Amino acid sequence: MRTGIIYFHGDAEVKSIEYIPIGIIHSPFKTLDETPMQPRLAKSAKGLIELRDDYEKALADLDKFSHIILIYHFHLADNFRLTVKPPHSTLYHGVFATRYPDRPNPIGISVVRLVSIMGSTLHVENIDVLDGTPLLDIKPFIPSLARQYGTTLGWLVDEFEDV
Amino acid sequence: MRTGIIYFHGDAEVKSIEYIPIGIIHSPFKTLDETPMQPRLAKSAKGLIELRDDYEKALADLDKFSHIILIYHFHLADNFRLTVKPPHSTLYHGVFATRYPDRPNPIGISVVRLVSIMGSTLHVENIDVLDGTPLLDIKPFIPSLARQYGTTLGWLVDEFEDV
Repeated sequence: MRTGIIYFHGDAEVKSIEYIPIGIIHSPFKTLDETPMQPRLAKSAKGLIELRDDYEKALADLDKFSHIILIYHFHLADNFRLTVKPPHSTLYHGVFATRYPDRPNPIGISVVRLVSIMGSTLHVENIDVLDGTPLLDIKPFIPSLARQYGTTLGWLVDEFEDV
Repeated sequence: MRTGIIYFHGDAEVKSIEYIPIGIIHSPFKTLDETPMQPRLAKSAKGLIELRDDYEKALADLDKFSHIILIYHFHLADNFRLTVKPPHSTLYHGVFATRYPDRPNPIGISVVRLVSIMGSTLHVENIDVLDGTPLLDIKPFIPSLARQYGTTLGWLVDEFEDV
């Protein structure tokens, strides 16, 4: 854990980084096919996060936030491809221009509504994550950090109407 | 890479997850003291992302987005503590209720403005990341995914005015 700096474009010394899950995400979605693509398509979906018992104190004051950011590992991700065709898309796009799970480091992020915390268990809503997903981190969702002006939406605008 | 499911609260079998950086983030911030706490405090800061050459094709169509999400490793993070006192805060909070770098898995996320892509090099603005930070993932920033209604801001409201 906590490896040093790596260098590219030179004498590449690529070091790996090791994380240990902090918990497990439980959701109604037992298969990839059932799992919504985005939180807005999962508005009523209730989830339960089982945090490691010894991390309970690290949740102090989180209950005062209405929304939290989950950072998790796409544990069913397949080998990545450089370009992918997301569901409902008709064209291939660079994987970094998509939220597709099969990426070089299969990390996912979702903003969910925090309903309650009981001990080391968190109840959440609007979850769009597969049941059994290993959780890597929790952060408070702070709208002003995400709020951006003059955003453009790239290829999504060409293919979808309601982004 | 791609380890299986882990279980807690039972016969705990905690497996580690291994990631390989996809690139390096360069910024004007050479020390932690210089690094802004949030992107909104780093509005004019220009950054440069050096992606692995062999991932260049994975950037296809990303240039049509105005903002991107960087997911990175806090490579200078210290051992984590369950409760931390963030800069400018007078009280301790659970580390998961903060963006503090010293967390169980020291993962950081930032939304930055994408200025241009040249080959495997990305030019960005509003960067709040330490120079030399290993990059783990890039995702397009899609405002509707982050937009939430009725958010509450927890302890931040008590301590700060301009969140």
